[in-house]
Amino acid sequence: MIRLTKRVEFCAAHSYANPAWSAEENQRVFGRCSNVHGHNYILEVTIQGEPSPETGMVMDLKVLKDVIVEAVVERFDHKHLNLDLPYFKEKIPTPENLAVVIWELLEPRLPGRQELRLYRIRLYEDGSFYVDYYGERAANG
Amino acid sequence: MIRLTKRVEFCAAHSYANPAWSAEENQRVFGRCSNVHGHNYILEVTIQGEPSPETGMVMDLKVLKDVIVEAVVERFDHKHLNLDLPYFKEKIPTPENLAVVIWELLEPRLPGRQELRLYRIRLYEDGSFYVDYYGERAANG
Amino acid sequence: MIRLTKRVEFCAAHSYANPAWSAEENQRVFGRCSNVHGHNYILEVTIQGEPSPETGMVMDLKVLKDVIVEAVVERFDHKHLNLDLPYFKEKIPTPENLAVVIWELLEPRLPGRQELRLYRIRLYEDGSFYVDYYGERAANG
Amino acid sequence: MIRLTKRVEFCAAHSYANPAWSAEENQRVFGRCSNVHGHNYILEVTIQGEPSPETGMVMDLKVLKDVIVEAVVERFDHKHLNLDLPYFKEKIPTPENLAVVIWELLEPRLPGRQELRLYRIRLYEDGSFYVDYYGERAANG
Amino acid sequence: MIRLTKRVEFCAAHSYANPAWSAEENQRVFGRCSNVHGHNYILEVTIQGEPSPETGMVMDLKVLKDVIVEAVVERFDHKHLNLDLPYFKEKIPTPENLAVVIWELLEPRLPGRQELRLYRIRLYEDGSFYVDYYGERAANG
Amino acid sequence: MIRLTKRVEFCAAHSYANPAWSAEENQRVFGRCSNVHGHNYILEVTIQGEPSPETGMVMDLKVLKDVIVEAVVERFDHKHLNLDLPYFKEKIPTPENLAVVIWELLEPRLPGRQELRLYRIRLYEDGSFYVDYYGERAANG
Repeated sequence: MIRLTKRVEFCAAHSYANPAWSAEENQRVFGRCSNVHGHNYILEVTIQGEPSPETGMVMDLKVLKDVIVEAVVERFDHKHLNLDLPYFKEKIPTPENLAVVIWELLEPRLPGRQELRLYRIRLYEDGSFYVDYYGERAANG
Repeated sequence: MIRLTKRVEFCAAHSYANPAWSAEENQRVFGRCSNVHGHNYILEVTIQGEPSPETGMVMDLKVLKDVIVEAVVERFDHKHLNLDLPYFKEKIPTPENLAVVIWELLEPRLPGRQELRLYRIRLYEDGSFYVDYYGERAANG
Repeated sequence: MIRLTKRVEFCAAHSYANPAWSAEENQRVFGRCSNVHGHNYILEVTIQGEPSPETGMVMDLKVLKDVIVEAVVERFDHKHLNLDLPYFKEKIPTPENLAVVIWELLEPRLPGRQELRLYRIRLYEDGSFYVDYYGERAANG
Repeated sequence: MIRLTKRVEFCAAHSYANPAWSAEENQRVFGRCSNVHGHNYILEVTIQGEPSPETGMVMDLKVLKDVIVEAVVERFDHKHLNLDLPYFKEKIPTPENLAVVIWELLEPRLPGRQELRLYRIRLYEDGSFYVDYYGERAANG
Repeated sequence: MIRLTKRVEFCAAHSYANPAWSAEENQRVFGRCSNVHGHNYILEVTIQGEPSPETGMVMDLKVLKDVIVEAVVERFDHKHLNLDLPYFKEKIPTPENLAVVIWELLEPRLPGRQELRLYRIRLYEDGSFYVDYYGERAANG
Repeated sequence: MIRLTKRVEFCAAHSYANPAWSAEENQRVFGRCSNVHGHNYILEVTIQGEPSPETGMVMDLKVLKDVIVEAVVERFDHKHLNLDLPYFKEKIPTPENLAVVIWELLEPRLPGRQELRLYRIRLYEDGSFYVDYYGERAANG
């Protein structure tokens, strides 16, 4: 079993606010993050599988990159996450929530070879902060 | 003569639009950059001078950092450059224009020792793109 | 379940010596590391938990950073690990031992939400060498 | 239990081709990778064990580095992987296959302390692509 | 005046040999570099000019990237520099010679605005070695 | 003319104190830097010259590295700069002073080809602070 990780980048704006809260409460909890600001996100997608004896590859890296670009980068790059996308109308666009959305966008688009599966989404908001998400399966057992 | 460089980071949102142009023209020229998006900017400030014989330092690094944080980071970090700041009402917040604004904010705040001067502003918009500005003096001679 | 990692830096001096050994034996085993020298340490602290539905966060990043700075950075930064701190009177300040000390300093200071726990301490001594510690719990089961 | 990771670099040339396929098929599947080209590989070797009470170390870092340099770097650095080495006569020199070969070269050369074992081989082909291999043991249970 | 730098990557194989020398002499002078091996090259292209008052840009970054990709990356990426390209039949593909070839490929392809000029080619062969070339103009005056 | 830069690393301890001052004055001026602490220094040495038509190289990189290792790394690595070296008995081991000492150690050891000269010493104390020194010649003209 080999894990293969591909790294891509996108840049986006966002702001944090819980619509159930007052402006003061949002300011108190989220501080400067309640302002519109932005980041260069770095996304690492990890796939797990067996290398094919014919190609020596777990998955064609170009195919993997194309899936990530189409499913994630084209959607999120140069966007305002709160305003331009349907995913953060109810949820706050924290890296935690972004990682789960990215998992849900990528997982059904990966090729259907049985032994191949999405293993981890790692998302850096900047060089000193990142989150990891392993899907529900990992959470449950 | 020694040049001393201090690096700091801030994150901000921006969008590119020339108000004299139509939406179509802005979209044609600026493409995805006409959307609200954001970056983790990395700013390098370079000071030039002679080390003090008493301290071995061109400038106290803590003082330099405090000047940069007060004059630049506190102003730009977690902000929407177009909306929250007075500098980009007329000018588009490209890295080129940002570097000039940062020079103008920093230069008068540096301590008045004659032999010490601001030498260069380097601003990374992401890991693969940066601009350098050396002030008018460098441009002229 | 999400894992959230925050990275901080501190710089410190240290030297390696086993007090039960002769100077020659220490020199033979530890080589150049028996001299006083130092490093820019990079510390990554990983927390594991569920994002709060209200904030979208596993833990407030500012709170986490404040805990790390108070418990670790303020203690270790710009210090001689052997002389200025109580932890390395008996133990040699290797990254392995440092990681365990850092775990023990951080773990009781994290907020008491049941589902939240310290998952991993990663400590880089330089860009080509790091250690990971997962606590006794990981070691035992 | 502590995991200790040492990073080294080597550079090498390679090309991808399945000898059972036509030139057209190889070009179709491997694209530009069917040309001779090369990389600066970054190899991270992770060892797992208990720190020695006498030295505070899981393993002497110099010994580990010497084993990696002798077993891997001297063999692979400044080489054409397909032509200069016996490992890729039948197998395509993908990072996946390289990681398994490196595991097999390193594992028997590590010192025979019972509690110490090779945990992971991480191999970066470039800054945006890496693979992880944990050995057969990890794959099986 | 602003300098703007764009970074791209390509990977290639090469070997060093002076055809006027014996195999022994080449081995003695070039050592391991006389073997076929390869690198992930990082290329930084620096342009110098005045920001346009209309766009705030010295040059459209997308145009610059397209010029670099077409003139350099498409030519050099996934190639054997000695065998697949006309530039290194007589010259040895050192980073020094590569930087001059890249300058000569890029300089005539840059847009003809008078105040805009190619300022510097920086080429990293790996993370610890790079060369800078400023063109003949810089060399002469 | 080409500039060639080689990067090496060393780690060392130091503390800042002006022996003409009281402990209070040293503490007031140097703050935490008056404690013994340490860094992983990154040193970049830049050489300027013409590539040899025979080798395509400004200077043999291995020779350059050997000169740097012998003149600088062997002297400074794993040392207490104040106590173990003769250079900082009178001078405070700031990066500014270190860069000048390194220039003076390297400059006479470089090969005597007329057109080749040491151009710059860049010294990083950590990832966010570095100094550049160009020698007396640059300072004077």
